[in-house]
Amino acid sequence: MAKYVFGIDVGGTTVKCGLFSIDGTVLEKWEIVTRTENNGEHILPDVAETIQAKIAERELEAVDIAGIGIGVPGPVNDKGEVPVAVNLHWGYKNVAGELRSKLGLPVYVGNDANVAALGEMWMGGGRGTKNLIMVTLGTGVGGGIIINGKILTGSHGAGGEIGHANVDPGYTKTTCNCGNQGCLEQFASATGIVNLAKEELEKADTDTCLKAETVSAKEVFDAYKAKDAVAERIVARFAEYLGNALAVFAAVVDPEVFVIGGGVSKAGQTLIDAVAKIYRRDAFADCKETPLVLAELGNDAGIYGAAKLALQ
Amino acid sequence: MAKYVFGIDVGGTTVKCGLFSIDGTVLEKWEIVTRTENNGEHILPDVAETIQAKIAERELEAVDIAGIGIGVPGPVNDKGEVPVAVNLHWGYKNVAGELRSKLGLPVYVGNDANVAALGEMWMGGGRGTKNLIMVTLGTGVGGGIIINGKILTGSHGAGGEIGHANVDPGYTKTTCNCGNQGCLEQFASATGIVNLAKEELEKADTDTCLKAETVSAKEVFDAYKAKDAVAERIVARFAEYLGNALAVFAAVVDPEVFVIGGGVSKAGQTLIDAVAKIYRRDAFADCKETPLVLAELGNDAGIYGAAKLALQ
Repeated sequence: MAKYVFGIDVGGTTVKCGLFSIDGTVLEKWEIVTRTENNGEHILPDVAETIQAKIAERELEAVDIAGIGIGVPGPVNDKGEVPVAVNLHWGYKNVAGELRSKLGLPVYVGNDANVAALGEMWMGGGRGTKNLIMVTLGTGVGGGIIINGKILTGSHGAGGEIGHANVDPGYTKTTCNCGNQGCLEQFASATGIVNLAKEELEKADTDTCLKAETVSAKEVFDAYKAKDAVAERIVARFAEYLGNALAVFAAVVDPEVFVIGGGVSKAGQTLIDAVAKIYRRDAFADCKETPLVLAELGNDAGIYGAAKLALQ
Repeated sequence: MAKYVFGIDVGGTTVKCGLFSIDGTVLEKWEIVTRTENNGEHILPDVAETIQAKIAERELEAVDIAGIGIGVPGPVNDKGEVPVAVNLHWGYKNVAGELRSKLGLPVYVGNDANVAALGEMWMGGGRGTKNLIMVTLGTGVGGGIIINGKILTGSHGAGGEIGHANVDPGYTKTTCNCGNQGCLEQFASATGIVNLAKEELEKADTDTCLKAETVSAKEVFDAYKAKDAVAERIVARFAEYLGNALAVFAAVVDPEVFVIGGGVSKAGQTLIDAVAKIYRRDAFADCKETPLVLAELGNDAGIYGAAKLALQ
């Protein structure tokens, strides 16, 4: 039985790499630069090279390696092919095929947001569960859904694209990067919170420590913790959108847990409490007690999830 | 290899039964009465008896029977147990265990709405797909979600409970049977459409053939087809709720197809077109072309799906 597994998380600027024992202990973590020039043609050769170097350095036997899991920022089909990955400057790329032929080891490929969800299920906030929805509140809103321990990919690779759930079809003040108006991402991402803050600051009639020109999601939550009245209105709108959306998602997939991660989630339990209050108001009776928890693996969720992908 | 499979759909008044060949051809359909007296204690013995009678009548060999699939109106756990089924007057019931011990054949149990979705996937509107969302617009709004050919049960048996997606948390005029306010069922079921009709008729300032006292969902759609201005407003609101909700669901599970069934769906392609227009406005780019189709199996979806459940 194999002892080791590699987890690789390819981002637009760095490739995060992890060598794990198959029980989920990380033995070593390192990073290489993502070289996106020439349509990102160096990326997979660089990944293969760093893995081969690590195998040589640690004198690992092929028979001891369960495989290589890799998360990429784009849709991934059943065969481990990527039709396009804008951040990597890739058009079509047979990720599984190319890495497999270079390494002679099993290769498993997944979308980075979905793979992060798998990581949180394996060794993070969702440990011990097999069904979860991961929500990543960063520059955008990402998501990943795990059903019976497996990633829900969807029929166009759009499974778990919860940032683009249209939660306010009447909203026209800003347009989402996806072209639609009213996406959850427009209200619950770091950028979305800043937009909500600007709207609330424009009509604010009370004192506030927030300034429209420089406001950030972190400042909003800091002011909220200090009971700033305008920050309370901003967080209430954020929580209304996200809490209601999670209640709708629960009526679809009924997860065991929601795991909330990404930069915005650094606001911590305060954020969870605000969102959970709305969630419990709107959720179907059988799902009202479903826990909302903070993600635990931070930027390492991708390498953990990639490793787990190779163990399934 | 087995040649036959039984599909059983237990409802509150009748039990629908089907004998199928394993390729999905229905060989015979029949019904028995659902005897709910004494906490429904006769229901499973009656089911076992009618199956045994059919096996005897047709002189079937046990080795030729793949199994018995059965759909019941309540949540079902992994072991084929039902904690409670109000319409059958059941408390806890080990459906799989009880039928298996009476029949000596493999028994597979599912929730009736989920099983109907499986039936539509196998031999109905979703034939040829493995990922679908079924929406049943009846007295309530039911749902079933199939991922990779399997029912999405959810961690509390609430997977696919899309009628209780809270699509309008600010709505307080009526309360859903589930106790919440703003559930999709309050707007998109036959009852919900009547409620929307009453609201629109109250404020109507133009001539209409609809009357608040007697209006039905069918009359609304008939008037809509005849271009009645008030009916157009009612259907527009119905379509806004349902089309947007389907777009949100698509951003979660990204199905290959939506299958729309139930009594309200008898309005046909006109209804599909109205809902699809809003769906395509609100859906994430990759999911905009996902087809919305009518269910094809009507009240037989349950026996088809139950049979398919026994073949998995």
